[in-house]
Amino acid sequence: MSALSELRRDPTGGGWVIIAAGRAARPDDFRHQPVHRSGGSAGALESCPFCPGREGGTPPEVAAIRPPGSAPDGPGWRVRVVPNKYPALFRGPEPPRSRRRGFFESLDGIGVHEVVIETPDHEADFPSLGPSQAVDILRTWRDRIRDIESEPQYAYIQLFKNYGREAGASLGHPHSQIVATPIIPRRVRDEIETAARFHAGTGDCLHCRLIEEESDREERLILRNEAFIVTTPFASRFPYEMHVHPLRHEALFSASGDRDLEILAASLQDVLGRFNRALDDPPFNLVLHQAPSPKQTGGGEPADAKSYHWHMEILPVLTRVAGFEWGTGFYINPVPPEAAAAVLRA
Amino acid sequence: MSALSELRRDPTGGGWVIIAAGRAARPDDFRHQPVHRSGGSAGALESCPFCPGREGGTPPEVAAIRPPGSAPDGPGWRVRVVPNKYPALFRGPEPPRSRRRGFFESLDGIGVHEVVIETPDHEADFPSLGPSQAVDILRTWRDRIRDIESEPQYAYIQLFKNYGREAGASLGHPHSQIVATPIIPRRVRDEIETAARFHAGTGDCLHCRLIEEESDREERLILRNEAFIVTTPFASRFPYEMHVHPLRHEALFSASGDRDLEILAASLQDVLGRFNRALDDPPFNLVLHQAPSPKQTGGGEPADAKSYHWHMEILPVLTRVAGFEWGTGFYINPVPPEAAAAVLRA
Repeated sequence: MSALSELRRDPTGGGWVIIAAGRAARPDDFRHQPVHRSGGSAGALESCPFCPGREGGTPPEVAAIRPPGSAPDGPGWRVRVVPNKYPALFRGPEPPRSRRRGFFESLDGIGVHEVVIETPDHEADFPSLGPSQAVDILRTWRDRIRDIESEPQYAYIQLFKNYGREAGASLGHPHSQIVATPIIPRRVRDEIETAARFHAGTGDCLHCRLIEEESDREERLILRNEAFIVTTPFASRFPYEMHVHPLRHEALFSASGDRDLEILAASLQDVLGRFNRALDDPPFNLVLHQAPSPKQTGGGEPADAKSYHWHMEILPVLTRVAGFEWGTGFYINPVPPEAAAAVLRA
Repeated sequence: MSALSELRRDPTGGGWVIIAAGRAARPDDFRHQPVHRSGGSAGALESCPFCPGREGGTPPEVAAIRPPGSAPDGPGWRVRVVPNKYPALFRGPEPPRSRRRGFFESLDGIGVHEVVIETPDHEADFPSLGPSQAVDILRTWRDRIRDIESEPQYAYIQLFKNYGREAGASLGHPHSQIVATPIIPRRVRDEIETAARFHAGTGDCLHCRLIEEESDREERLILRNEAFIVTTPFASRFPYEMHVHPLRHEALFSASGDRDLEILAASLQDVLGRFNRALDDPPFNLVLHQAPSPKQTGGGEPADAKSYHWHMEILPVLTRVAGFEWGTGFYINPVPPEAAAAVLRA
């Protein structure tokens, strides 16, 4: 960068960021609380409701990978899906009732909120799981999303993982979450509209083009194999942010085949392992962005998502979002993504 | 609320939030680190670069309220403004150069980044400042913003205050920050466009109407005096979020007269004091939203901001933004703003 600081526009529709290399930081300048999977105290492990033998501590399971013939809500499972005990949204009457109180507009908070318990092992860590366990987690994500997509009252399904207390995880046992919402969220809609405009103007998929550009330039490339590419995005909001794209154009993660998921699991294990080594096991959020549910009939108008291309974002929690970000919607990132990619490739 | 959970649309253009009353929390359910103004260690006070007698530890002051005839960068000041030592944006050539690298668009990171040192007293707290000191801070905010507005290369000026380490403050001494950017930030643009559409459709100011509605309903009202209203917004993103609006329609905070600032200072001291008592001195971010700089010639197209109405947002840091929020742009708030207002009125 020629200037000390640079504003960059996210080509996929996420707005502007400030890459403030003048504040540049080395990987070990970021201090974070260690991610104790036992939750920071021995007691957390001893009372963990996600551990085998305590299946009664969660609502009844809605899905599981477990030995043929074994009973639901008993031990033996490899991955287990349960409703969130403190859901943000509730299954309810459809379509959701919309309400106007004069000036103010609201909608019943109907939806789905589930927890994917990723392994029976409280102390396990995604990068060091056995490969078949990692694939089982991804199959469970895909299969639950497919199932919820068959319920047409939900417009969008958001898969996410909060890793570490600083990333919002309240329990240390490895888990992820799935929330289905009755409307298409704004951030997803912004991305879909940006991709649709690009497609209308060029006939191409914005994300396929992005993949080509990043493959050619190499400076933000971390990994590329026969099915996936992992990069630090041009307009990274956070230090060491990573995005994972499938090379094949596809709007829905839920359309992935088993072979895709095997390669994706290995890719995620690889890059999250790099992450741990470079940044000392940082807290992070992982989020999936895919097209809205194909059968949706819910609160929002359906979005034209043919030109969309699913991907995952991995967002380390190394800096704090503060007044400037809340006021502007801009992000200040002290680590240029080219420098982050060099560290993560090494 | 009839449902356990409700989606609410921010009428001012900020998107949807989920009010998840099923997760409802009492004020003392929120634990946060105590806001030690000494930074958590005695050493922080002993080496604080914002304390009187250490004026040489900052870049030379650009403004101050100090006794007539006293020398810049010496003691005696009541409020002092200095360039940020680690700025996110730098003063530079104008207009900012725009660059395209194929697919990717960037802009020189030119701008202003200043720190307002709000009082010589390291341990002071805004609600318990002497009234004239509180007014001096607000006068300094206004006067610096006015000065920067006279430099036409900056499109927008963002004033914000990070209070407490969890809110992003790296130094404990009371301070706030002013950043001028070469483009109008997305969040401000969304609000301006929403207000402009409302004005085009009704001939009215959206925020004036909002003030009327909130005054009539009273359920989200915390304070209303001859010049300002403080409410918990209908679509509060965060528990105990508060917004401060001037009753008089005005696009620019920087147009405030001295009498306005006296009433605003007293109003802020009142509501931040309520905040401290109800929530045990919580970390928070305060952000100003006003119209873009009137003389702007910078990178973005100027926005039509005649219909805008300045306000301040006070955002407590009691919950964590996590994967769901990053993925969707939605916020999950476990405290209905009506309940928060009842606590803050008490």
